[in-house]
Amino acid sequence: MRNCEIVGWGTVLPEGTVRFGDEVRYRIADDVTHLDMLAGACERALARAGVSADELDLVIGASAAGVQPIPCTAALVLERLTLTGHAAAFDVNSTCTSFITALDMASHLLAAGAHETVLVFSGDVGTRFLNPAQAESYELFSDAAAAVVLRRSADADRGVIASAQRTWPAYAHDTEIRGGLSRSPAQDYADADPADYLFDMNGKKALLGMMRVLPEFFADFHAASGIAHDDVALWVPHQASAALGPMLDRLGIPVDRRIDEVSAYGNMVSASVPFMLARALDEGRVGAGDTVILCGTAAGLTANVLALRL
Amino acid sequence: MRNCEIVGWGTVLPEGTVRFGDEVRYRIADDVTHLDMLAGACERALARAGVSADELDLVIGASAAGVQPIPCTAALVLERLTLTGHAAAFDVNSTCTSFITALDMASHLLAAGAHETVLVFSGDVGTRFLNPAQAESYELFSDAAAAVVLRRSADADRGVIASAQRTWPAYAHDTEIRGGLSRSPAQDYADADPADYLFDMNGKKALLGMMRVLPEFFADFHAASGIAHDDVALWVPHQASAALGPMLDRLGIPVDRRIDEVSAYGNMVSASVPFMLARALDEGRVGAGDTVILCGTAAGLTANVLALRL
Repeated sequence: MRNCEIVGWGTVLPEGTVRFGDEVRYRIADDVTHLDMLAGACERALARAGVSADELDLVIGASAAGVQPIPCTAALVLERLTLTGHAAAFDVNSTCTSFITALDMASHLLAAGAHETVLVFSGDVGTRFLNPAQAESYELFSDAAAAVVLRRSADADRGVIASAQRTWPAYAHDTEIRGGLSRSPAQDYADADPADYLFDMNGKKALLGMMRVLPEFFADFHAASGIAHDDVALWVPHQASAALGPMLDRLGIPVDRRIDEVSAYGNMVSASVPFMLARALDEGRVGAGDTVILCGTAAGLTANVLALRL
Repeated sequence: MRNCEIVGWGTVLPEGTVRFGDEVRYRIADDVTHLDMLAGACERALARAGVSADELDLVIGASAAGVQPIPCTAALVLERLTLTGHAAAFDVNSTCTSFITALDMASHLLAAGAHETVLVFSGDVGTRFLNPAQAESYELFSDAAAAVVLRRSADADRGVIASAQRTWPAYAHDTEIRGGLSRSPAQDYADADPADYLFDMNGKKALLGMMRVLPEFFADFHAASGIAHDDVALWVPHQASAALGPMLDRLGIPVDRRIDEVSAYGNMVSASVPFMLARALDEGRVGAGDTVILCGTAAGLTANVLALRL
């Protein structure tokens, strides 16, 4: 058990929506930036926690893609929050599961006494990188941001009970944005394939990969941690695609204790997990003492699972 | 003390050089990629450690800028090393000091027993993002990559003794590459200022910021950790610029126990610290039992300091 507690949370969801049949997707307005959304979620999390940005001693940015190549997104968000703070600011990136990786890191740092008050934020603007020629990704993504403030808890039974993460690199190219950094810099854009700078998913191949590796990954996690399905109040999975439901069925995760809002919210990239967790907290669906499992797959192919006692 | 040991290290330095007066800078050939260089350094580190890529259970990518926006660079490097491994792969980014941040994280994870064998790699291709109109950055950067393999040590006295990290966001825009991700995507390149997609340094302003904040940062670190200058065999600082020497003088770091190779190697961005550490290990300048201090400043403005007993 790595003692910690979510003392505040906040989200930003754009007002603008588009619909594809029954599916609703959220898209930020042209005059709103990725950084606006991230900073907005952080401000709400800090307000809810009653913590000022100057009290933070660590800010972890956990987005799939950053605001700019240099500096890291955490430094740019910290600048929005305070010019006088003393936090360390860095980014952690495992694409769509970055929040879970960052929360795991934060729990280690808090448990070790390396930090006292940690802000973790996630969020992407996937809809600015959509390829209209590829319906499966074009109709899937939403923009959103979410943040949490973490501290050690006075209750020794609250915190990260167990976690696991693994990457299967044979599936590294099933979900990509190839262009924008060293492989295909913006400077080459005019001579390159414009599709290289947009989301490119091979959803069927990615799904087959997940179907192959996830059952053993989850079975190993439950065996090693001793956490049974009956111990879990709620599963908060990354909202990867419409295949989420069948995947959760295959993993034996009960329908009444899992969040599947792909139809209503789409895939919010790195924000999916913290956004859905914050929503469950806001609705009182889970609260202090409940064990939640944050989990999901990400481009890589990476899988994360983390059991948190709230 | 977070017990760990560097059991292997490797570097890649391009063959091609350019000279600006007495200054030598290394630049990768047109047919070599960022990923080639990163994977090459990792292969050398694994070979030196006698560890196969399939034995790794964690790979942390610690570059300032990635290979592509999605997936993370660690997943792409892992794919080069093995298609059958079982490592978790994610990136950590604090720009030029990313290696120190990642080594710090790795030491927490090893000490907690979360992982057994960790690969950390750094490296950037700064020279592909140079602006010929800005001499101070155009004449400063070199390309390179470096990697280390870490395990817990049988000797309880080896490992990370202490570390500190802090960001001063008032200086967030002194060193930047603004374009390529959400703020200025490649799609906007034709209508944007091309300089936004290249290194932009305000070296004088950055230096004034560092001069203001670093003395207290280092004094606090030594006071909190109890590590005196006499305890340190070698300081391995980020090779930020020609101002490194005067900065180290100001911090009272003795000339005979510090690495300042800016003239001969330039600023290798995230690779500077691990490259210079690997070189000192190769030369036998430091070895088992010696305490080294890895330190430096990064865009953010971020400073890191970490004391490692080899």
